[in-house]
Amino acid sequence: MLTKRERTRHSILDIAAATASEHGLESLSIGSLASSTGMSKSGLFAHFGSKEELQLATVDHAALIFTREVIEPAQSAPRGVARVWALLDGFLDYLERDVFAGGCFFATTSAEFKHRPGAVRDRISEQLARWDAYLTRAVAQGQELGQIDPGTEARRIAFELKAFVHAAESHHQLFGGTDVFVDARDAVRERLESLRPRTAEKATGLTG
Amino acid sequence: MLTKRERTRHSILDIAAATASEHGLESLSIGSLASSTGMSKSGLFAHFGSKEELQLATVDHAALIFTREVIEPAQSAPRGVARVWALLDGFLDYLERDVFAGGCFFATTSAEFKHRPGAVRDRISEQLARWDAYLTRAVAQGQELGQIDPGTEARRIAFELKAFVHAAESHHQLFGGTDVFVDARDAVRERLESLRPRTAEKATGLTG
Repeated sequence: MLTKRERTRHSILDIAAATASEHGLESLSIGSLASSTGMSKSGLFAHFGSKEELQLATVDHAALIFTREVIEPAQSAPRGVARVWALLDGFLDYLERDVFAGGCFFATTSAEFKHRPGAVRDRISEQLARWDAYLTRAVAQGQELGQIDPGTEARRIAFELKAFVHAAESHHQLFGGTDVFVDARDAVRERLESLRPRTAEKATGLTG
Repeated sequence: MLTKRERTRHSILDIAAATASEHGLESLSIGSLASSTGMSKSGLFAHFGSKEELQLATVDHAALIFTREVIEPAQSAPRGVARVWALLDGFLDYLERDVFAGGCFFATTSAEFKHRPGAVRDRISEQLARWDAYLTRAVAQGQELGQIDPGTEARRIAFELKAFVHAAESHHQLFGGTDVFVDARDAVRERLESLRPRTAEKATGLTG
């Protein structure tokens, strides 16, 4: 159970993450957030002592939403290629549903902070690296289970699969439409199919 | 031959494009550009009447640099898969060389303007759509020449290949290092190899 204070903090951060996904983390201020939440500035200061603290909490909150919407549902799929698919399919679904008003929170904020060294940039990188590691581990599990060809590094496969999702997201944000999500889903599925181990064929001597 | 006025305009726009690649197009102002170029504000006003005009000229200038650095060199490669490779390899090379101080100009500015409707956003989309169309045509030529499997739409193939490049760029900007460009180059090459038409194998009846 969340306390009233935690629920308030949560609601503030929902608004902050939506705003930042659209206009960036620099657009956040205690003042502007006071007017969009209807809270007093001093009430907001009680939750976040500074703009940077607010920005850091917003990054962590966006990562929590991603975990809840994409990672947790995929954990119910069996380990291996089914979970890898569930992660990518869920990620595409999440972007298609426009969970954040401005599209992918991390796409907006990582472009915004790439040349602003400091705690906020570090936190964004950290959260993205955690997701990277999670997806890579899921691919590696598929390889250990003999479902994904071990000839290509798990890291490389994760890189390619994520690339399709990110490209769909930026295309969607710039040109509208959702056809590009179909393209990305097809690309992910075909890539996973192309990575099926060739054991059967090898055994019959038809290839390799 | 460029006139002196054109050369001056060109130098101003080189600085504007570099600044925008790092801090976005909103960071550009006649005032800040006056101090970074050492020109007078009135001198700059003679070239660009407004901030928006300056932003539009900067977008076009960045597209010209991309054409000069990536598209023109690839035009010397033979049509078909060689030109597709030259385009992607040249694009990766261009990002690796950090032609713009802040990395890919269009990555920064399209994230910045995705939710700011208006002439600047339209110009960014237009320039990206032109590049998209160019790459798709190059892939289609490869299919017409029998070098790329026609079973997948050219548009889809172009989408996948570009996705690898963009993913490498954002990883490079956020985490540093250049290993990810090796990954992207490998991914592009392997994808192109996987799209070789299977005529030879079909003829011998070994597959499908």
